[in-house]
Amino acid sequence: MRIRVINPNASASMTAIAEECARAVAAPGTIIEGATNTMGPLSIESHYDEALSVPGLLAEIARGEAEGVDGYVIACFGDPGLDAARELARGPVIGIAEAAMQAASHLGRGFSVVTTLSRTIGRAAELAERYGMDRFCFGLHACEIPVLELEDPKARTVIADACREAVHADNSDAIVLGCAGMADLCEYLTREVGVPVIDGVTAATLTVQSLVTMGLRKSGRGEYARPLPKQYTGILSGFTLDDQEVRS
Amino acid sequence: MRIRVINPNASASMTAIAEECARAVAAPGTIIEGATNTMGPLSIESHYDEALSVPGLLAEIARGEAEGVDGYVIACFGDPGLDAARELARGPVIGIAEAAMQAASHLGRGFSVVTTLSRTIGRAAELAERYGMDRFCFGLHACEIPVLELEDPKARTVIADACREAVHADNSDAIVLGCAGMADLCEYLTREVGVPVIDGVTAATLTVQSLVTMGLRKSGRGEYARPLPKQYTGILSGFTLDDQEVRS
Amino acid sequence: MRIRVINPNASASMTAIAEECARAVAAPGTIIEGATNTMGPLSIESHYDEALSVPGLLAEIARGEAEGVDGYVIACFGDPGLDAARELARGPVIGIAEAAMQAASHLGRGFSVVTTLSRTIGRAAELAERYGMDRFCFGLHACEIPVLELEDPKARTVIADACREAVHADNSDAIVLGCAGMADLCEYLTREVGVPVIDGVTAATLTVQSLVTMGLRKSGRGEYARPLPKQYTGILSGFTLDDQEVRS
Amino acid sequence: MRIRVINPNASASMTAIAEECARAVAAPGTIIEGATNTMGPLSIESHYDEALSVPGLLAEIARGEAEGVDGYVIACFGDPGLDAARELARGPVIGIAEAAMQAASHLGRGFSVVTTLSRTIGRAAELAERYGMDRFCFGLHACEIPVLELEDPKARTVIADACREAVHADNSDAIVLGCAGMADLCEYLTREVGVPVIDGVTAATLTVQSLVTMGLRKSGRGEYARPLPKQYTGILSGFTLDDQEVRS
Amino acid sequence: MRIRVINPNASASMTAIAEECARAVAAPGTIIEGATNTMGPLSIESHYDEALSVPGLLAEIARGEAEGVDGYVIACFGDPGLDAARELARGPVIGIAEAAMQAASHLGRGFSVVTTLSRTIGRAAELAERYGMDRFCFGLHACEIPVLELEDPKARTVIADACREAVHADNSDAIVLGCAGMADLCEYLTREVGVPVIDGVTAATLTVQSLVTMGLRKSGRGEYARPLPKQYTGILSGFTLDDQEVRS
Amino acid sequence: MRIRVINPNASASMTAIAEECARAVAAPGTIIEGATNTMGPLSIESHYDEALSVPGLLAEIARGEAEGVDGYVIACFGDPGLDAARELARGPVIGIAEAAMQAASHLGRGFSVVTTLSRTIGRAAELAERYGMDRFCFGLHACEIPVLELEDPKARTVIADACREAVHADNSDAIVLGCAGMADLCEYLTREVGVPVIDGVTAATLTVQSLVTMGLRKSGRGEYARPLPKQYTGILSGFTLDDQEVRS
Repeated sequence: MRIRVINPNASASMTAIAEECARAVAAPGTIIEGATNTMGPLSIESHYDEALSVPGLLAEIARGEAEGVDGYVIACFGDPGLDAARELARGPVIGIAEAAMQAASHLGRGFSVVTTLSRTIGRAAELAERYGMDRFCFGLHACEIPVLELEDPKARTVIADACREAVHADNSDAIVLGCAGMADLCEYLTREVGVPVIDGVTAATLTVQSLVTMGLRKSGRGEYARPLPKQYTGILSGFTLDDQEVRS
Repeated sequence: MRIRVINPNASASMTAIAEECARAVAAPGTIIEGATNTMGPLSIESHYDEALSVPGLLAEIARGEAEGVDGYVIACFGDPGLDAARELARGPVIGIAEAAMQAASHLGRGFSVVTTLSRTIGRAAELAERYGMDRFCFGLHACEIPVLELEDPKARTVIADACREAVHADNSDAIVLGCAGMADLCEYLTREVGVPVIDGVTAATLTVQSLVTMGLRKSGRGEYARPLPKQYTGILSGFTLDDQEVRS
Repeated sequence: MRIRVINPNASASMTAIAEECARAVAAPGTIIEGATNTMGPLSIESHYDEALSVPGLLAEIARGEAEGVDGYVIACFGDPGLDAARELARGPVIGIAEAAMQAASHLGRGFSVVTTLSRTIGRAAELAERYGMDRFCFGLHACEIPVLELEDPKARTVIADACREAVHADNSDAIVLGCAGMADLCEYLTREVGVPVIDGVTAATLTVQSLVTMGLRKSGRGEYARPLPKQYTGILSGFTLDDQEVRS
Repeated sequence: MRIRVINPNASASMTAIAEECARAVAAPGTIIEGATNTMGPLSIESHYDEALSVPGLLAEIARGEAEGVDGYVIACFGDPGLDAARELARGPVIGIAEAAMQAASHLGRGFSVVTTLSRTIGRAAELAERYGMDRFCFGLHACEIPVLELEDPKARTVIADACREAVHADNSDAIVLGCAGMADLCEYLTREVGVPVIDGVTAATLTVQSLVTMGLRKSGRGEYARPLPKQYTGILSGFTLDDQEVRS
Repeated sequence: MRIRVINPNASASMTAIAEECARAVAAPGTIIEGATNTMGPLSIESHYDEALSVPGLLAEIARGEAEGVDGYVIACFGDPGLDAARELARGPVIGIAEAAMQAASHLGRGFSVVTTLSRTIGRAAELAERYGMDRFCFGLHACEIPVLELEDPKARTVIADACREAVHADNSDAIVLGCAGMADLCEYLTREVGVPVIDGVTAATLTVQSLVTMGLRKSGRGEYARPLPKQYTGILSGFTLDDQEVRS
Repeated sequence: MRIRVINPNASASMTAIAEECARAVAAPGTIIEGATNTMGPLSIESHYDEALSVPGLLAEIARGEAEGVDGYVIACFGDPGLDAARELARGPVIGIAEAAMQAASHLGRGFSVVTTLSRTIGRAAELAERYGMDRFCFGLHACEIPVLELEDPKARTVIADACREAVHADNSDAIVLGCAGMADLCEYLTREVGVPVIDGVTAATLTVQSLVTMGLRKSGRGEYARPLPKQYTGILSGFTLDDQEVRS
């Protein structure tokens, strides 16, 4: 089984972190392949960044389909392009926000999200609602560290403080990390904060692996059927789909 | 006051329809300018199409900002790129779904949406929820006419039938048209169906005009502040924002 | 186009403020006419006051219908008698709470309401829910100034303080003013508070104007059809409707 | 204990029915007193009727307070004037919709409402939501019999048919009767329909009796405190409250 | 009329308190009978305790049915076994949480729950939602006194403090006591706290009495029909139902 | 890693089916152990059955804890005793309803549940809400086959028909099987119905495996902390917990 972990941020070092975390939990026989966005923002910290990360993400899905990949992880907490990616892929596509929140829902009455910049909180709240996880989401908090500074060694203590404050303020049972760039901090934070801390990259990888193991994929009819073939214009003309595409 | 009606579909004839409908309701002194997406799908009928229409939409917003436009209408019922566009623009940006649904909410207990293909219904339902309009939305229905065939003269009777069936099935008080390409059918359908029929292009144009008249624009702080300047890669490198941008 | 701004409070000076604010935003050709309740409370600060303001409001609607008015604004934040007024009027009737909240929904993730007495907060919350705007309403706050003391020059600084505290406590993007008597403070407060401040009289006037421009009015069937003719008794016998009324 | 059953409809024969039904369930020692609205519509079948029934209802509450009544039933399924009545009264005031729906919530997973004219369904749905009973309300149905024709002997079989169809369509466990004028049909309908049928007059009378027995009344502070004394104008000047009123 | 107040806690002294409180409000002619769980936990303070209190509760319902009891109160704020008990009983079965919350819903805009240990708050919140009472429930608070220490004279001042803080924090209009063991503190707390304080044992007793008076009982069909006869194994073999059971 | 699949039904043949389905998807190195309830109903088809299955389930959890089991599946679609089991176990406990619904949420816009008897639908709907999955649950349907007759070869065609009708009626993208006894029909039904069909035993097994792989377990504080030690009486005295229990 091949699972591709696509990083919508155009940052190879963040992809490396995500890839490593995914590989650490994959079952024997599951191959993890990282992929970095080749047309988009270096980091995603606004709706503008997120929207513009999607073409690159979809290009990676299209490439994965051509290469026979079995399932995909979208390694950005805004779960950008999830619906479009599901139309394009034959196998499962899972966002790290949805997987992390679902995992957290099993660990207690509710969780707190700790993310990077406060301007991304609105989107995370929207996703929680979309996934039906808002009833488990007791609060969303920012540590105000930009995505590209997460790898700074000083970041981890700031994040740990934010997690502790979130658990206290929300009376929550778990922490969901709100950025793929925090994936490698899980163990450290669990130890520091005293409640389970969930990284979405790991959770999404296992969700994809489970769905592929069960042979579960979209039905091929309806809303998530393959997009109709259509001409694209301008710099996006490469996204034109034709009729010869194999159907699931 | 200058209002730009941006058509995320790369179809000039659809833009012409939208522009004309907008102009018909604008107040004296309000200038309506149509703009057609130059990098995207000819028509939007899937999540894939919608996602890939957004870069072109954002390019038009950026152009409008450089030209001093006061407000924008997004003339596609999926309201693509709305959040990103709001970050980028100083003045109001309104989607036709949100405007149409809000207008319909004043006309009775609930409305039906009649749209093109059934695969777009999921997105419309999601928007209704996001705008708080799901409590007014009594049903969503498709006439199964592709966007680019709406201009076919035979389309209007099929749509009229779909509207009548929707009113009957949902016991609704109004119809919201689920595609910018139907904008010019409003008068015909109102007469045929016997309940008010709402076109979002018209509604959104007047909403923008009202907000500009009141001097209401986003606060400049928080989630919808201008995106942080950031390098974009690959074919999207033209979307890189720099620091010299004027702030609202 | 004639729009009548009806003040359910029996206070002519408050009507004058509302009328002036409405006139300031109306398009050329739109005639704004103020009307003061002639049978009801001097100010509305309780459910009792609100309920008893409705007969006078409906009398004004009936008068407006006889005089050919095109649409109505209910200039009290409890939106009293809205449903009954809609049954009676052929054209649109808009409450200032619904219009202000809808306008605010376009300006960011959420808004705070700042109103007069805290005992009116329950009703405002109920309206936010009814209009589907509760998801945008991040908090409701009182400045504890009675309606008839809003014109006192000292009131504005108290209100500005309440707005600032509300934005801080709710982390909101806009302020909705919770009383028609605050309509003239909009500009001052926007400047002082640093986020957009929305007055419902202005917003409702433009909503009515937009609906009339689009030719949108209730369908004439169903829940909002004209009330059945019926005998009224006692001091309300003047409200008896007969069969000769023109239907929309 | 004295409980006053106030009929907001200006129809003495409907009051007689309600009074009789209330008396049939009251405990020994509970005195039931009927009261008919003296200023309002003969029957309530629209928002207009409902709004104009409220002054008369409030006049009856004021009279009851002067006479030392312990609690009140509002015998109309729209629960008109409930909030205002609660401000005015020292003891409990219960609407028949809220009482009937709460009683039905104990009898199974969900209930159907069967009411008079379909134009009243919107209001009933709104009340179900307000009381948190929408999750139990599986459907709302009209028998299309006007309120004043409910006493016609032929009405009962039409209503029985509507109840049977409602149970079948909604797969519900009970029927809530949507009009005080149906109060005397409870026994007949229960026998005919085969599920429990709930009359709100009866249910509300027992709810008031229970609350008075427990000594439970509003706190006297906050939203439901007695309305501030205030001048009323025109034909409603008799509703002016003064400062000498006894507080609870 | 015979009402049995079943205490799911295996504590006779708590049963005595509940029985006394129920008797104090029952109408003349209503016989109150207490019953203590004979197979379960001494007190209920966890999901584990609650789950294991249910067989004993159901045994008491079965005994009551054999003895011709008319209705039942479940005297524990988790309302354990409510659905199963309703299947088994012919007459009404009411939990003290549902009855207390419904009573509180008539007394103002919202209530606070004050309960024993904070670990029970999650269940109480779940019940509030299930009964549609979450919209009235402004907050849930623990006084951190274990159930079996409630009878300690020092407990009442701690609880009074918790109630006062809850009213202040939630801006609520009433207190709902979150444990049957607090039933006898109602009068004291109402006096101390200054808002109405509701004990569920009392409220549930009167709700049962009202339903029996109205002749309302489940329909006998559907989800709450008597359980199918079925063999039980091991130590629960005594719960086997046979076919000879009388149906309602 | 050892995962125990506990069947709350006292039916060894159903346990064998569940065990086999779980084993078919477990990763190399994951040991699946089936366990059948030794004190409870032969099958679970009512709230009464479900409540009485819980002590036996908890006894199995206690046994598993003593034997060092890493995680548990509750193999009954009512997810009986889930909260209590989570208090008792150190590792994850997953119900088949929650796991199946979460898996289905990734496969499209919404799913239909197809279960055994219609009287169990209410509980399934309640669970969908509790897990936040009600927004994905487009309908619940019964095939009216009792649990113990599912192994009859004729059952599968009846179930296939019910699945097809459900997809058509709900316009859903997947089927969730509403009973552990249907676990072995997944492949057959997927082929017959043409949409993905999800068995909760399989899904829950993989969810437990994923959580254990990630090292995620409850925090040990708060609502799901180990139950306080407490004396149990009567036939349940064996459930008494003492202080020596190892804490997670």
